[in-house]
Amino acid sequence: MSRLDDALTLVAIDSVSRNESTIAGFVETQLRENPHLEVERVGDNVVARTTGLRALRLLVAGHLDTVPGDVTKAEIETDQLRGLGACDMKGSLSVMLELAKRPAARSHEVTWVFYAREEIARTESGLLEIAQLRPDLLSADVAILAEPTGGVVEAGCQGSMRVNIELAGKRAHTARPFAGRNALHRLGELLYRVSTYEPRAVLIDGVEFTEQLQAVSVGGGVAPNVVPDLANCVLNHRVAPDRTRGEAFTSLRSFIGDCLADGDVIEVADWAPAARPSLDNERLHSLVSLTGRPARGKMGWTDVATFSEIGVPATNFGAGDPLLAHTSEEFVTEKELDDFARVLGEWLA
Amino acid sequence: MSRLDDALTLVAIDSVSRNESTIAGFVETQLRENPHLEVERVGDNVVARTTGLRALRLLVAGHLDTVPGDVTKAEIETDQLRGLGACDMKGSLSVMLELAKRPAARSHEVTWVFYAREEIARTESGLLEIAQLRPDLLSADVAILAEPTGGVVEAGCQGSMRVNIELAGKRAHTARPFAGRNALHRLGELLYRVSTYEPRAVLIDGVEFTEQLQAVSVGGGVAPNVVPDLANCVLNHRVAPDRTRGEAFTSLRSFIGDCLADGDVIEVADWAPAARPSLDNERLHSLVSLTGRPARGKMGWTDVATFSEIGVPATNFGAGDPLLAHTSEEFVTEKELDDFARVLGEWLA
Repeated sequence: MSRLDDALTLVAIDSVSRNESTIAGFVETQLRENPHLEVERVGDNVVARTTGLRALRLLVAGHLDTVPGDVTKAEIETDQLRGLGACDMKGSLSVMLELAKRPAARSHEVTWVFYAREEIARTESGLLEIAQLRPDLLSADVAILAEPTGGVVEAGCQGSMRVNIELAGKRAHTARPFAGRNALHRLGELLYRVSTYEPRAVLIDGVEFTEQLQAVSVGGGVAPNVVPDLANCVLNHRVAPDRTRGEAFTSLRSFIGDCLADGDVIEVADWAPAARPSLDNERLHSLVSLTGRPARGKMGWTDVATFSEIGVPATNFGAGDPLLAHTSEEFVTEKELDDFARVLGEWLA
Repeated sequence: MSRLDDALTLVAIDSVSRNESTIAGFVETQLRENPHLEVERVGDNVVARTTGLRALRLLVAGHLDTVPGDVTKAEIETDQLRGLGACDMKGSLSVMLELAKRPAARSHEVTWVFYAREEIARTESGLLEIAQLRPDLLSADVAILAEPTGGVVEAGCQGSMRVNIELAGKRAHTARPFAGRNALHRLGELLYRVSTYEPRAVLIDGVEFTEQLQAVSVGGGVAPNVVPDLANCVLNHRVAPDRTRGEAFTSLRSFIGDCLADGDVIEVADWAPAARPSLDNERLHSLVSLTGRPARGKMGWTDVATFSEIGVPATNFGAGDPLLAHTSEEFVTEKELDDFARVLGEWLA
């Protein structure tokens, strides 16, 4: 049995978000066979811990769910596994399971977290469920989140802010537009401004984070012969971990400020906080050394921010190309799994 | 009974578009009492004609329907009638009915057209219904369309073109927008361009027409974390009667051309043709003289274009402020009706 076979076993269990009970049961059964682990089931989440008296506790977490898709098409081709979830993130999960089950002489305790519903709204997250019902299970000195990172440490994560904007106008007949004010023409000015945004890049703990600003939806219109009096627009702002929600919003407000006027509405509809890279943490620093490659900043949002919120320095580190996540061509190679197993094993040793 | 009382009688009959059978019946009955008129009912349209052998035939037309609203609130206040349809256009209709019923020694024949469903899609128009079923009834040398014009001749009408545009992009994660192309940011450029449009004004037969270009609806967006790959936009272009549909589209295409790219779609979704002012027509010229005020170009689209299409020179001329049409504050004054009756009566004499 190669690591690809182990990974295929997990891929073959359908676990689209909210349908994780089967795979959670499988993982739980595997873990319970090991006397060196104390296993807890919380909903469809499974947590396994060594419970000695060593001072330091390391935590490794991964999510059990996948985005929607068809798992029956999964297959091993020579040296790689193709299929839904292969890369994001059952390849890494199977390595976690392998290392969790292996008794090892260690100078610290280890916690393994397998959680549900990461791929949907954050409010449904299994990790938040554990944090709420059994916060003690997430207690650790440092954590790795095994999201696909191509075997490189992707440190921290950027915050993500969704901003709703409503631009006001005044209705008029399109034959007499001078009697009104076209809210869509005002929207043009706003979108044009957003398109001129120059990404702000910042270096934190030696890794670079690049902020982004994108319009993600627009709407407006009354009738074919009416100058519209309302336009709406949603912006998504990716925020580097050196800024708070308030700082980011103030800066955004200033960037687009003169496109807004009295009577317009601008509000933060959603905010997922950023997480600092924490590469000043000795354990995370040593992880970077073990990978043999420089760390980089994580651009997308991940649950590293959740660990950051509960005071556990964490980083993203897993097998598989992050650009393949959520695509139909997802795959993971045997070498990626072997490298991940080697680095993670050494880090835990 | 003043002319306001007569107008109130018509206003009090609910005739929102597609519900004109009662008012058509009322008008038909009134007209049939006059032996000098030959009356025809075509659906909910009523046409009354003198049928002598005089060479010249004048036509006066008005629509029976109103936009949606509540007719029970109509009332006469001193010297004006307030209520749905008072201005657009039952005040003028009641004057038409009064003059139609009055036998007069004339040097020409007269056709009176009362038609249904003007306030909704042109394809449902009662005037087009007559043109299709009984084109002979619309035969005339010159026509007045009694839409509200404030007692001034509003000559011709502008064309109205609806243009659908789809802008293409490439999807990407909003954390990595450089991997895609944001169709909404491209839309910003297009809307901004449209907002810089300088209205083209042209003088035809001594009256000015001012073209307009307005965005009337926009849409686009995939998900809060996705760079959208499609944006759509509808433009409404008001076109002066010196240009054809093809000329207007070519000019518009050139104005926004460099905002478009391969893979985008631009198409004319709808075109209501323009009508020249026809003020070189002796009868329409004399109408302008009778009003005692200079003619102006009609900016909105009206059925003057329908008469133009069937070869009948026509103009807009009626009682009531055109800016009140389709508002909840619609009214018409007794003086407006008296002036309209005097000018129309003299023109027909």
